[in-house]
Amino acid sequence: MRVLAFDPGYERLGAAVLEKEKGQKEILLFSECIRTSAKLDFSTRIKQLGKTAEALIKKWKPDAVALEEVFFEKNAKTALQVAEVRGALTYIAASCGLPVHQYTPSAVKVAVTGYGRGTKADIAYMLPTLIALPKKLRIDDELDAIAVGITCLASVR
Amino acid sequence: MRVLAFDPGYERLGAAVLEKEKGQKEILLFSECIRTSAKLDFSTRIKQLGKTAEALIKKWKPDAVALEEVFFEKNAKTALQVAEVRGALTYIAASCGLPVHQYTPSAVKVAVTGYGRGTKADIAYMLPTLIALPKKLRIDDELDAIAVGITCLASVR
Repeated sequence: MRVLAFDPGYERLGAAVLEKEKGQKEILLFSECIRTSAKLDFSTRIKQLGKTAEALIKKWKPDAVALEEVFFEKNAKTALQVAEVRGALTYIAASCGLPVHQYTPSAVKVAVTGYGRGTKADIAYMLPTLIALPKKLRIDDELDAIAVGITCLASVR
Repeated sequence: MRVLAFDPGYERLGAAVLEKEKGQKEILLFSECIRTSAKLDFSTRIKQLGKTAEALIKKWKPDAVALEEVFFEKNAKTALQVAEVRGALTYIAASCGLPVHQYTPSAVKVAVTGYGRGTKADIAYMLPTLIALPKKLRIDDELDAIAVGITCLASVR
């Protein structure tokens, strides 16, 4: 089972490809933080993110796509724009014939820390015990995408 | 100038194609309400709506796509799911090289009724004075898409 996981955002889109074979530990094949410029109009940013997602699907041939679904943000407009990114990713994945799994932040926290109210720091602390990470320090969005991928591999049969 | 306008939704997506030639009145070339079944999972519904939008772009070859952007709904989850549909439509339009224009409900009301707090009934009353509509009674989503198209034709130079 190979999953392409995203932590959706329009400034920074976290992406990760994880794989788990029966009875084996999860392995991380790839992770990246895709950025778009605030100088571009929103539809161009969505297009850039979507094209990158399409290229990742083509390259890594995942069996499923996993997304973190966030219902509330401090800013309602931000939440809606992040939802637009999620919609574009969902469309692209479904068009490629892939199942799309969405996980709430609380489900991700339970999968990674065993506790639904874990903090970002708890996730960052637990992740290296669950999966081998590259030595280079990873930024939040990339770690979040890896956490979403772990959640998906733990949930999907 | 030809515009493909949408009133985004996942249960019902209003779509309309309007055209305006210099010095002429707007004409309605097409309108439809695209429905998806609540029995389908959300990603399948997004895929169906997106595929229909792609087919409409291919058939009608618009110069631009216009969407109504709604920031608030009674239900936050509904607002986010409608935003996901908007994101998929934005991605599809931008991928086809089309500019994407978003209009708030208030901008649509100003364009159609001359008043930003007009009601749905005001829009339904004013629309036939602005554009020739088919005799068949149109449902709300279709009328809303036509109103978004009129707003776009009135705003874009």
